[in-house]
Amino acid sequence: MAQKLRVTVWNEFRHENKNDLVRSIYPNGIHQAIGEGLGAEVEVAYATLDEPEHGLTEQRLQNTDVLIWWGHTAHHEVQDEIVKRVHNRVLRGMGLIVLHSGHFSKIFKALMGTSCDLKWREADDKERLWVVSPGHPIVEGIGEYIELPKEEMYGEHFDIPQPDELIMVSWFEGGEVFRSACTFHRGQGKIFYFRPGHETYPTYYNEQIRRVIRNGVHWAAPTIRDYPTYGNHKPLEQISAKE
Amino acid sequence: MAQKLRVTVWNEFRHENKNDLVRSIYPNGIHQAIGEGLGAEVEVAYATLDEPEHGLTEQRLQNTDVLIWWGHTAHHEVQDEIVKRVHNRVLRGMGLIVLHSGHFSKIFKALMGTSCDLKWREADDKERLWVVSPGHPIVEGIGEYIELPKEEMYGEHFDIPQPDELIMVSWFEGGEVFRSACTFHRGQGKIFYFRPGHETYPTYYNEQIRRVIRNGVHWAAPTIRDYPTYGNHKPLEQISAKE
Amino acid sequence: MAQKLRVTVWNEFRHENKNDLVRSIYPNGIHQAIGEGLGAEVEVAYATLDEPEHGLTEQRLQNTDVLIWWGHTAHHEVQDEIVKRVHNRVLRGMGLIVLHSGHFSKIFKALMGTSCDLKWREADDKERLWVVSPGHPIVEGIGEYIELPKEEMYGEHFDIPQPDELIMVSWFEGGEVFRSACTFHRGQGKIFYFRPGHETYPTYYNEQIRRVIRNGVHWAAPTIRDYPTYGNHKPLEQISAKE
Amino acid sequence: MAQKLRVTVWNEFRHENKNDLVRSIYPNGIHQAIGEGLGAEVEVAYATLDEPEHGLTEQRLQNTDVLIWWGHTAHHEVQDEIVKRVHNRVLRGMGLIVLHSGHFSKIFKALMGTSCDLKWREADDKERLWVVSPGHPIVEGIGEYIELPKEEMYGEHFDIPQPDELIMVSWFEGGEVFRSACTFHRGQGKIFYFRPGHETYPTYYNEQIRRVIRNGVHWAAPTIRDYPTYGNHKPLEQISAKE
Repeated sequence: MAQKLRVTVWNEFRHENKNDLVRSIYPNGIHQAIGEGLGAEVEVAYATLDEPEHGLTEQRLQNTDVLIWWGHTAHHEVQDEIVKRVHNRVLRGMGLIVLHSGHFSKIFKALMGTSCDLKWREADDKERLWVVSPGHPIVEGIGEYIELPKEEMYGEHFDIPQPDELIMVSWFEGGEVFRSACTFHRGQGKIFYFRPGHETYPTYYNEQIRRVIRNGVHWAAPTIRDYPTYGNHKPLEQISAKE
Repeated sequence: MAQKLRVTVWNEFRHENKNDLVRSIYPNGIHQAIGEGLGAEVEVAYATLDEPEHGLTEQRLQNTDVLIWWGHTAHHEVQDEIVKRVHNRVLRGMGLIVLHSGHFSKIFKALMGTSCDLKWREADDKERLWVVSPGHPIVEGIGEYIELPKEEMYGEHFDIPQPDELIMVSWFEGGEVFRSACTFHRGQGKIFYFRPGHETYPTYYNEQIRRVIRNGVHWAAPTIRDYPTYGNHKPLEQISAKE
Repeated sequence: MAQKLRVTVWNEFRHENKNDLVRSIYPNGIHQAIGEGLGAEVEVAYATLDEPEHGLTEQRLQNTDVLIWWGHTAHHEVQDEIVKRVHNRVLRGMGLIVLHSGHFSKIFKALMGTSCDLKWREADDKERLWVVSPGHPIVEGIGEYIELPKEEMYGEHFDIPQPDELIMVSWFEGGEVFRSACTFHRGQGKIFYFRPGHETYPTYYNEQIRRVIRNGVHWAAPTIRDYPTYGNHKPLEQISAKE
Repeated sequence: MAQKLRVTVWNEFRHENKNDLVRSIYPNGIHQAIGEGLGAEVEVAYATLDEPEHGLTEQRLQNTDVLIWWGHTAHHEVQDEIVKRVHNRVLRGMGLIVLHSGHFSKIFKALMGTSCDLKWREADDKERLWVVSPGHPIVEGIGEYIELPKEEMYGEHFDIPQPDELIMVSWFEGGEVFRSACTFHRGQGKIFYFRPGHETYPTYYNEQIRRVIRNGVHWAAPTIRDYPTYGNHKPLEQISAKE
């Protein structure tokens, strides 16, 4: 019997403690709402910023197949050493799903090599996420688009490298577009960036959004094989003597 | 009359001062050999590690359209502040050509988000670089392959993100392959990684290698347009009042 | 002195002869408006459906560096033999710019390998084309977006292979998005698909649209090198006798 | 309980009937050797050229999740109508794995839009397939390279569009390289091209080659969702009246 995929949901967990509106929507924290949406097929653990080592100990990461990341106001408080630890794990195969404002997290910027900047607006825009890669497993069970009645707007230019796969593009009521579902590969790790999920909207209870994240977790699962060897390498064939 | 493209060739310039063999091949430094290969169509400047600010002052970079980078033994001596300055210029449109052992430079690793590690061997392998993107401007004037009688071997896995364009793949006598000519985009900047050029071989005098670098410089030239605006963005269309 | 780039603008040229509105906008045909927008830097020729061999004789194509294609109602009237001839020229390096309803042309479908289908609506939608690849030469001189007050809507899913480079994404007033500026490579040829230009709107007089097409022509220019050799190939190295 | 994936292995099945060497290696046909390598996790059916409709009836294709294709000497005998039927099924989500000389099949050429030509040589070259995408599920369980003691050589330039993912690159003893494991998306369908498997070598009994094909079948499995709607589309938002 196959082992369950082990997912750790990481959340900054600050808005929920400081803001009544956010707490009313996510009383147990955004991480819990995300974790509940993953269903029983996977094994879920949680980690938050204010735990020792941000809850991301070496052991926790060794026992994580896919890490989900939600952060917003405290990116700078995440210690560089922990970022490096997560980075290293991604290169060695751990999947990473970066949600919404996580675009500005240290780990996402380190993996992308760009500013990861964008346009934004909190104005109750309607958002419609259109599928542009209809055969991708991340949109299994999803219709032609997902409509969210109110969300924060994120607009282009989104300063990321060209995604390996562009899966959804958002339309916003106020006139902008955004590459909302993108995948990347770094080392042996798979990375999925998914835009929706501002803290003042109940987006992570939306069944289609949950389905996409669930699909994303399965897509980002590690590929089981040895890490490549690097460095000095003996020849596999004879090299002719040359003068 | 169009202004000439302004190229700065940066070299660590250490091997040439310490090693008789290297000095005999590149008596004025690898940077001079690279710069001479660029021809009269471009305006060439030089910068080296031991100059103040590694020769890469803010002013120098502002006057650089394309930066060529050769480094090997002293990557760690390049100051983080200068790396950040170059990184920022690339995101704002400066072209960057990273040669050979520059794969392990701080700037290349920061732009890639990966370890940039690889296999290597100094054993006088014959190298044959095969063109796999025959319509790319970087291989204008180049035949089906370039053959180098002796070079250092670099072998896969090369830990980089999937290139936006893969242009050449090397065959090595000892049994390995390598993605030797790759392009990437970061922000408004274009990046070209080109493998050949170990310091103990006269590779940068090879006319075909010079042609590829020259083509690369023209390909990597900045696109003239305003840098995108980021941050809070007013709606371009009316957003309906919602309850 | 460098030879001028030779561009042939191909137009179906039917709407202009049958429809008063279209003729009033493009009295000399859409092709003339496109050609005038290319400026004096290039040498422009024209070809239309009802000429012998659709104006695309072997000689005409041999003297064409970049072919621009506008068709809509008569895709099926283009002879398969001519399509094959154009296809062959693209694989051997001729650039191809496919405009608007040319998405359904035989040549574009043959090059893509997909249905090239999409959603559409003629309802005077406002269109806003957002730049998502800010360093690409095709958007040199272009702002963050191009706004067209009225255009036909094209919506996702657009059934094309993932573009090699996605350069612009359109927002439409009626709620859709579209990958509007995409590049592809086939053989030695470069292909640029650009969405705007329904026959009932004066889109090809818009200065920014003209700039994009002009940039596209330069980007799609052939790379000068020999066509690859294919077929049986003698070994370049000795193969060990094996039993 | 999940339904088993339904795989159809298609083989031209001519060499085995005409050539003693090939028959001695694949007495029941190449298709049987490939099918046996897929294991019990999937449901395998077979189809060959000389059956009515080449064994690829509408019903057979409707009951196929992933089609594997091996052909060589009789590509021209495959009826255009059947090619169109397979093409249509791929666009609607059926996975397709094209092996070795299938690079020149009508279906692969139609999906690629290029000549699919290459260099080749039958000279008992040693082949070494190096993994360049170490996190891809297609190389799960595979080491840094697969070595085949003798195979037909295929060399670059391989005239295909840039693959969506390049997974393995071959080194050949005679001095060439080849992009040997490549994925593409067309419509809702996933396509995997895998190079090895000349009829005079026992390649399809090699456990690592079998593992790659098995992984490929799972990767290419259809994504379950409705086919997109195309054509005229009513607005989802109100379009302002304009003058």
